[in-house]
Amino acid sequence: MVDTVAVSTAGSAAGGAIGGATGKTAAPSTSISPGASAATAAIDVEWLGRYLLGTWAEARLASRRVAGRPEVQRIEGQTLAEHRQRVFEQLHYLVREGAVNRAFPKRLGGQDDHGGNIAGFEELVTADPSLQIKSGVQWGLFGAAVLHLGTEYHHDTFLPGIMSLEVPGAFAMTETGHGSDVASIATTATYDPEAQQFVIDTPFRGAWKDYLGNAAVHGTAAVVFAQLITRGVNHGVHAFYLPLRDVDGSFLPGIGGEDDGIKGGLNGIDNGRLHFSEVRIPRLNLLNRYGDVSEEGEYSSPIASPGRRFFTMLGTLVQGRVSLDGASTAAAKVALQIAITYSSQRRQFTAGSDTDEEVLLDYQKHQSRLIPLLATTYAASFAHEVLLTKFDAVFAGRHDTDADRQDLETLAAALKPLSTWHALDTLQEAREACGGAGFLAENRFTSLRADLDVYATFEGDNHVLLQLVAKRLLTDYSKKFAKADVGVLARYAVEQATDRTVNGMGLRRIAQNVTDHGSTARSVGQLRSAKVQRALLTDRVETMVAEVATRLRPANKASKKKAADLFNQNQNAMIEAARAHAELLQWEAFTDALEKVDEAGTKAVLTWVRDLFGLGLIEKHAAWYLIHGRLSPKRAQAVSDYIERLTARLRPHALDLVEAFGYGPEHLRAPIASGAEAERQNEAREYYRELRASGTAPVDERSMKK
Amino acid sequence: MVDTVAVSTAGSAAGGAIGGATGKTAAPSTSISPGASAATAAIDVEWLGRYLLGTWAEARLASRRVAGRPEVQRIEGQTLAEHRQRVFEQLHYLVREGAVNRAFPKRLGGQDDHGGNIAGFEELVTADPSLQIKSGVQWGLFGAAVLHLGTEYHHDTFLPGIMSLEVPGAFAMTETGHGSDVASIATTATYDPEAQQFVIDTPFRGAWKDYLGNAAVHGTAAVVFAQLITRGVNHGVHAFYLPLRDVDGSFLPGIGGEDDGIKGGLNGIDNGRLHFSEVRIPRLNLLNRYGDVSEEGEYSSPIASPGRRFFTMLGTLVQGRVSLDGASTAAAKVALQIAITYSSQRRQFTAGSDTDEEVLLDYQKHQSRLIPLLATTYAASFAHEVLLTKFDAVFAGRHDTDADRQDLETLAAALKPLSTWHALDTLQEAREACGGAGFLAENRFTSLRADLDVYATFEGDNHVLLQLVAKRLLTDYSKKFAKADVGVLARYAVEQATDRTVNGMGLRRIAQNVTDHGSTARSVGQLRSAKVQRALLTDRVETMVAEVATRLRPANKASKKKAADLFNQNQNAMIEAARAHAELLQWEAFTDALEKVDEAGTKAVLTWVRDLFGLGLIEKHAAWYLIHGRLSPKRAQAVSDYIERLTARLRPHALDLVEAFGYGPEHLRAPIASGAEAERQNEAREYYRELRASGTAPVDERSMKK
Repeated sequence: MVDTVAVSTAGSAAGGAIGGATGKTAAPSTSISPGASAATAAIDVEWLGRYLLGTWAEARLASRRVAGRPEVQRIEGQTLAEHRQRVFEQLHYLVREGAVNRAFPKRLGGQDDHGGNIAGFEELVTADPSLQIKSGVQWGLFGAAVLHLGTEYHHDTFLPGIMSLEVPGAFAMTETGHGSDVASIATTATYDPEAQQFVIDTPFRGAWKDYLGNAAVHGTAAVVFAQLITRGVNHGVHAFYLPLRDVDGSFLPGIGGEDDGIKGGLNGIDNGRLHFSEVRIPRLNLLNRYGDVSEEGEYSSPIASPGRRFFTMLGTLVQGRVSLDGASTAAAKVALQIAITYSSQRRQFTAGSDTDEEVLLDYQKHQSRLIPLLATTYAASFAHEVLLTKFDAVFAGRHDTDADRQDLETLAAALKPLSTWHALDTLQEAREACGGAGFLAENRFTSLRADLDVYATFEGDNHVLLQLVAKRLLTDYSKKFAKADVGVLARYAVEQATDRTVNGMGLRRIAQNVTDHGSTARSVGQLRSAKVQRALLTDRVETMVAEVATRLRPANKASKKKAADLFNQNQNAMIEAARAHAELLQWEAFTDALEKVDEAGTKAVLTWVRDLFGLGLIEKHAAWYLIHGRLSPKRAQAVSDYIERLTARLRPHALDLVEAFGYGPEHLRAPIASGAEAERQNEAREYYRELRASGTAPVDERSMKK
Repeated sequence: MVDTVAVSTAGSAAGGAIGGATGKTAAPSTSISPGASAATAAIDVEWLGRYLLGTWAEARLASRRVAGRPEVQRIEGQTLAEHRQRVFEQLHYLVREGAVNRAFPKRLGGQDDHGGNIAGFEELVTADPSLQIKSGVQWGLFGAAVLHLGTEYHHDTFLPGIMSLEVPGAFAMTETGHGSDVASIATTATYDPEAQQFVIDTPFRGAWKDYLGNAAVHGTAAVVFAQLITRGVNHGVHAFYLPLRDVDGSFLPGIGGEDDGIKGGLNGIDNGRLHFSEVRIPRLNLLNRYGDVSEEGEYSSPIASPGRRFFTMLGTLVQGRVSLDGASTAAAKVALQIAITYSSQRRQFTAGSDTDEEVLLDYQKHQSRLIPLLATTYAASFAHEVLLTKFDAVFAGRHDTDADRQDLETLAAALKPLSTWHALDTLQEAREACGGAGFLAENRFTSLRADLDVYATFEGDNHVLLQLVAKRLLTDYSKKFAKADVGVLARYAVEQATDRTVNGMGLRRIAQNVTDHGSTARSVGQLRSAKVQRALLTDRVETMVAEVATRLRPANKASKKKAADLFNQNQNAMIEAARAHAELLQWEAFTDALEKVDEAGTKAVLTWVRDLFGLGLIEKHAAWYLIHGRLSPKRAQAVSDYIERLTARLRPHALDLVEAFGYGPEHLRAPIASGAEAERQNEAREYYRELRASGTAPVDERSMKK
């Protein structure tokens, strides 16, 4: 490998051009009163660490203790077969540790603890994402499908083997021909009343089940999703419990499959394909909570509408998205804790000194690369806590109406895309910010990034999820239009949304105020106001949704084809509106979280972090605000200037902010974050100090010419 | 693995929301006259393919033939040791094929063909980036250092063994403690006149050479960069030829090392560390083209200034950056050819039809994800041809002044960051656009992305390179200020720059015109003008440079520390100015390339591609244009609207545009681009057609309820 040739500035006249100053020096403090002075504000790291652990702190800490043990951690460089076998054994280890049964019923040895289960599951990502996802396949999908789509018979019959891992299983939903469009899967389950059996069939290659964890090697059973056909009627997608392999690991008759082979990551999981040729299973193997077939072949369902039934069944599996949101955020935290620790020790280039090189994190660009990602990670972390709380309330039955479930699904669909993409962006930026050292597998970034790559498209492709959110926004908008029920957009996001969301007209007025010209100090003062940030972010969502809704209005009266064309011509705009909405949700979660921070120093710093996140969103979308007259050019420039100052002001707090994430060396496991770099720097500086003191140091030719 | 659960829209009332229309339908044609009508414009794929191959078409094609052979191609899933061994053997294969000696002197069996050598080298990326980079280490760095930094003795003594691979070697520049700051490396080479030897020493851990290809296993020699010290004076960094290992592979006395282990990619290369404890080499092993030491220890150099000497020596190694620019662009082409082929066959979700699902590339969002990347890839490809031409002119000696070399270095420093990042973005977007299939290693994206990751930080960290460019822009700006030599910024970019670059005032006037309000059609008409695009892009570079220069002016009179602080506070702005400049270079290269396209249909389509690229840049920086009063809000909105229409208009040409890249199945090697997907789609559609025709198809429950 060829690393970073020849871009020195030392020794040239222009050497100072990338020279460094500490953030403190760069941060002016005259015209801005940041709530607490930059000098006195300080984070109570221990308190903040506990706060970040959230409601299910104990479950998180317990899972982190497990994840910190070498037995469950990734060994880089294993072959596909070795890695798969190791992760499979780690699943048994989790069973022995009692780490997997929290979500299951107490009467079967579980704890009925849905929030804690997800919180613990997420933390496994620090050990090995393959372990996290393989355990997710076994207990979060295969087991959860039996739990949520089956009834007592299935729980009693199948769950014990699933919980103990006696029966490793696949979740056979996705097909080669259909990923995100589950309703169109082509596998059929046709009821045969004579035999009282369902006949499972994959009629063509595209109907093969694909990308299924546990399918290639370990699975001995599966929950198979198929179109349920009885008496000549297709009742839509239902789930069936189906044995796959016999005791010696051979496929049962009529079943075949392929190994998906090597993937871009998650190679500890044996993904594969399955196909079924008229495989017969007992009638009772239909997971029949939402749809049943009598011995005679009569179909019945507690949900009359096939559409609502479909979404209800799939909605029970929302925990996959919830947990990816949390796991991605955990991975981003690990990445930043490693990169910011290293950047605080690593020195490169002299600038303001003849002898001492600058610490990387003292460079403006380095701060701008990492600190805004840190702010977004905080926002994602607080937003995830809101999501997990909502999830637990629904699944524990405390708030489990149809509306609650729809709110939960929309919230998950909004947050999962942002956090999974954010994790990839953060891992990549951290990798690059650590240079060649960041590229070594031992320093974690590349491997985590490779594994998390697929989080952006599985459990719902991110773009498809954002479209779901957009549809919800449009539906809410049309209701609002009908009922003048203002503020409905944010209803599911925050409990007291209606108290705080200003109405359409008021909102517009606030935004207009922001366009007023004034002194830069006043501009910045306004921008620091949570009310102004909220108004700007909310206004953008509402305006974008209204614009799309207006453009889509002719679709109501158009032919199916014309309506589809119209929707397609607004697809980008819909996705952008959904993204803006999801960003607002993160901002609101962060702002709500600030309210519970009592300690003044911590609150001051966290408020800057929130401002950096909020103003970062406004800067990212500055063109929109300018085009729509919501910000004057001067104010838009002030946003960018203030972001630069905020970033520099946060530099002295960056280490505290990552240490509050609470991951120990057993989770980071990156030599560059171990203190080795500080030792090397000290050794080098000491060497030169002694050399200079000895009087034997060679004279620099450059100094002789002057 | 859990793939994309439950985001169907089929069966729900909102199902049309992601419905599809073909790009043709979406593209309006009333108010715009695109030069040729969308209906008649068509690409001559064969002609365009030849054109894209450029000046060194034969070398490229020859290298593609080699890269198409299984012997040199990556096998996924090999262990570290297997992959390293395979790539090493592939290097021998290249030697036998005569593929590696183009750049070396004719008198030693080479061809003195510098441009052709790089062109051929770049194409190896399609076989295996490890092969590309390992051959780059051997012949492009180790060999090139001997060639360019050594003199006849070194050529005669060392090059034959290097060319034949009898002597595999490392390029020992980077140290654990110093990557981009080469001038500060700590390894010393102290001349001992008694023994007429240099003593090579790494005095502390941070001085160890690191990340060196061929160092862990295969290298038996190295070119080592060290501070040359003689008679008590340090003359700065020089290069030395040093034997590493004896015939049985053991390190020679005083030499030790470590294996860098597993990396995020490029694992076919044995990167490692080296350390030296007073290792003695003959005086003649100093590669003495730019600096020599007499037997008595007297230092001499043809370049008096130590700073200029340093940059001249390192400048001879610019080809690393040149070739990464080309290889990254080749990888982006492969990614797009795979993803666009698949997206043209893959169907998902019904929208405007009851039976037929839509082709992915007919969705607006899918077009917006891939087609602008295609436009940037074209820009990068044409810009690379300019860079390679400049490189060849310098290295063949046709245009080899100091100014030429500086221009070449700046051009390479500008383009390499953009193209390496672009390749990563493109590979990632292509991966996600192909969903779960994109995550399978067999479909190439993940593996190429993992390998190319490090291209962003080696051979000069991208951000450090952009700072180099910024310094050049500032220097040129100050010269311009002194000499009123307008248009100097673009001088090295395009040969006739002075003919075309408008002066500062004129530029401003054009930009102001663009802010005039007018009909949308007129707005768009103006935006399609190359003159207006050029003016907007150039104006932004000039204004940003001028702003930074003004803010930096106090640095001249400040203390070193204060000056460094001032530079640091403008580091982000400098890097952004450099990026804007590099984007302008790509745009100019594309625009120049259009001039040589005679065929009307091809020219029409390529002009739309160029417009998409140019307007895409303006949209990306719309906030800047709005804040600086260069675009009115209305015009800025028109840019975005027009981009959406251009993207849709290019959709029918997307396949032609990727086929012109000219990579065959032996280069793509992705099952999803093999036609297998089209077969699966046809099989599924045929199955349903027959089922409907048979009259035995189950009735859809949904249709019964209506």
